[in-house]
Amino acid sequence: MDIEQSIRELEEQCKAARAASRRMAYLSTDVKNRALENIAGDLLSKKDEILAANELDLKEGKASGLTSAFYDRLKLSPAILKGMAKDVLAVAALPDPVGEVFDMRTLPSGLLIGKKRVPLGVIGTIYESRPNVTTDISSLCLKSGNAVILRGGREALHSNGTIARIVKEAATRAGIPEGAVQFIDNTDHALVNRMLRMNQYIDLIIPRGGTPLITFVRDNSSIPVVAGGIGLNHTYVDKAADIEKATQIIYNAKVQKPSVCNSLNGVLVHKDVAASYLPAIAAELNKAGVELRCDERSYALLKGNKALKLRPVAPEDWSCEFLALIATIKVVDSFDEALSHIERYGVGHSECIITEDYSAAMRFLAEVDAACVFVNASTRFNDGGQFGLGAEVGISTQKMHARGPMGLREITSYKWIIFGTGQVRP
Amino acid sequence: MDIEQSIRELEEQCKAARAASRRMAYLSTDVKNRALENIAGDLLSKKDEILAANELDLKEGKASGLTSAFYDRLKLSPAILKGMAKDVLAVAALPDPVGEVFDMRTLPSGLLIGKKRVPLGVIGTIYESRPNVTTDISSLCLKSGNAVILRGGREALHSNGTIARIVKEAATRAGIPEGAVQFIDNTDHALVNRMLRMNQYIDLIIPRGGTPLITFVRDNSSIPVVAGGIGLNHTYVDKAADIEKATQIIYNAKVQKPSVCNSLNGVLVHKDVAASYLPAIAAELNKAGVELRCDERSYALLKGNKALKLRPVAPEDWSCEFLALIATIKVVDSFDEALSHIERYGVGHSECIITEDYSAAMRFLAEVDAACVFVNASTRFNDGGQFGLGAEVGISTQKMHARGPMGLREITSYKWIIFGTGQVRP
Repeated sequence: MDIEQSIRELEEQCKAARAASRRMAYLSTDVKNRALENIAGDLLSKKDEILAANELDLKEGKASGLTSAFYDRLKLSPAILKGMAKDVLAVAALPDPVGEVFDMRTLPSGLLIGKKRVPLGVIGTIYESRPNVTTDISSLCLKSGNAVILRGGREALHSNGTIARIVKEAATRAGIPEGAVQFIDNTDHALVNRMLRMNQYIDLIIPRGGTPLITFVRDNSSIPVVAGGIGLNHTYVDKAADIEKATQIIYNAKVQKPSVCNSLNGVLVHKDVAASYLPAIAAELNKAGVELRCDERSYALLKGNKALKLRPVAPEDWSCEFLALIATIKVVDSFDEALSHIERYGVGHSECIITEDYSAAMRFLAEVDAACVFVNASTRFNDGGQFGLGAEVGISTQKMHARGPMGLREITSYKWIIFGTGQVRP
Repeated sequence: MDIEQSIRELEEQCKAARAASRRMAYLSTDVKNRALENIAGDLLSKKDEILAANELDLKEGKASGLTSAFYDRLKLSPAILKGMAKDVLAVAALPDPVGEVFDMRTLPSGLLIGKKRVPLGVIGTIYESRPNVTTDISSLCLKSGNAVILRGGREALHSNGTIARIVKEAATRAGIPEGAVQFIDNTDHALVNRMLRMNQYIDLIIPRGGTPLITFVRDNSSIPVVAGGIGLNHTYVDKAADIEKATQIIYNAKVQKPSVCNSLNGVLVHKDVAASYLPAIAAELNKAGVELRCDERSYALLKGNKALKLRPVAPEDWSCEFLALIATIKVVDSFDEALSHIERYGVGHSECIITEDYSAAMRFLAEVDAACVFVNASTRFNDGGQFGLGAEVGISTQKMHARGPMGLREITSYKWIIFGTGQVRP
């Protein structure tokens, strides 16, 4: 099919999503929940169909030399489908954010004004290989009354296409307007470029994937983008830190799930406690086989323990998101040096101080600029589920709209509603 | 100066603003207010300097054949400077949004979490000829703890440059960090293009000007943009409308200040009341000399009154923002046809229904998608001052971040603050 024809089709899809979104703004919560229940049911009852499509992707992937990590992310199983269905039901169980009225007040003119929470409208998502993103994002969009345009990766085309069709049918059966779920089955890169400029139809773009994808989307979109999902998080061990808390929190932040954006990337230690604390922290991290990339002073303090996986830090390590059992270690002369390091290398995701000093804690909270600033707790808590928001579409590291975990409420907007009795402006 | 050199200088300015913004996040309200008081004072005490610079702009403008409307917007006077100083003091008198803590709660894990309001960081503004934008935007940015990068139009370069220098000096004298106010004195278009991609330094772009400027900025920025300031507002006279309210509200919305984005663009009238109401509405609008661009049915109803300025509507009129004493008139068969027209031609700024029918009012509020949806009140109320937000940086017609009038609070963000006692994620 020629590209101009594909672009026209894409535009039709976007238009249909926009039209559906108008009616979705005032759907009842019941209809939306029923749609999610249908989706969850169909993921299980139609699992053979999905697994067959997945098998096709896996076969093509193998033939084209997919890496094994990629293969693992792509592969579905009855157990994974069950998990996906459970996640969809969990979204159904969350409160509906739409319709909330707030900041209502009467003005001196007698106008009664306030804000009413409404869906954003149409959310476009561009994602890489995990087929579960198709149901994750769809269920969050539908529950919040948003139409959704799904553009998954080429490698998962069969899986995503089949799941998207099932989602669409299940939603329509519940009374969601036709057009609310759109799947782009042409993975030509030129189409993504066009999609990113369709600001007349799409209200928000959520890229889900690695740094290159996110950067590409942000740089090429005329539509607002939730740019997040990249973490470069520090935990600073203050001179007044409790060694027990420091050790456990750092271990948890680094080891509990190193592959995610809220895991620890670097440890900063105040020089006054470096000699006494660092060996214990390093030994603890070593239990999980963490490789430590050390500045000169920390290297000198730790090199005596031959069991540790140590190496001198390279300059580029300070700004590398490891997502693996690797951490940088740096001894700082002062609280201020820790702040400067965080300001220079942090990306505004999660930053933590370990301290028993009240003033140090309060200064850290005041001065560090990040989506989540922690005192004496693991950065791994930066998560929609952990924060009580339910499922999340992502973690935003930008400051516009929503910052940190983005749940249902964070993919809504508001409109002002004004009840007058004939007022005119003097 | 060659362009590469200018770009390097621009980058240095952006970096300086970013560095200043870090410290501005925790400035006291006193320092910020003192800065605004200094600015207001200096606008008056240094008025000769400003007026001399303005004289240069006016002379150059005349030589290059500026239109008289343009000339009027550009021209400063002691009275205008007094007004600008007063506006700056009005911002000083507003409450400081920064530091507000909200949504604080204790999680089952014992973590105490909540959100703290913080400045956005660095706000870039690209504006056209009015020099008062320099102090308007600067004062709102400084009060909300944001650094500001000002890029005004070529025609007002001397005026803006002088005012910006005065603002900068006055702010620094009060204790605002150096670098907080940056003025770009090179109006080469290539620099704007580069500025719009400096997302590592700038958090938000506010374009202030006409549709071409706003569209250009939105399409070329990798930084979030507040796209607003364009209105295409309808007032729908329902079959259950009160004729008195309809007439007065429509007159006010069209006539009180036709040059602004919250003024009325089109009137929709239900067919059941068109014959009885339209002549009265038209006669009222005619008192101010409003030209009516009528669909076939309204033309037929009104053509008998030879005093009216009537003409048949052209198709492109439905989507033209008049900003003048012109209005489209259309008779609709039903409430739903009114909604469809609004959905098709509205731009999501301000929409109004005139009705005494409770259910019609509630349906209009529920189903119309716009920043402000009015029942029985003039759309001219869509304004930060009128809504009690104080001064505004603009009116947003997009759904991300803030919608409708954007005051001080709307140019802030938040960060999550988490007080732990050693929690790790299970």
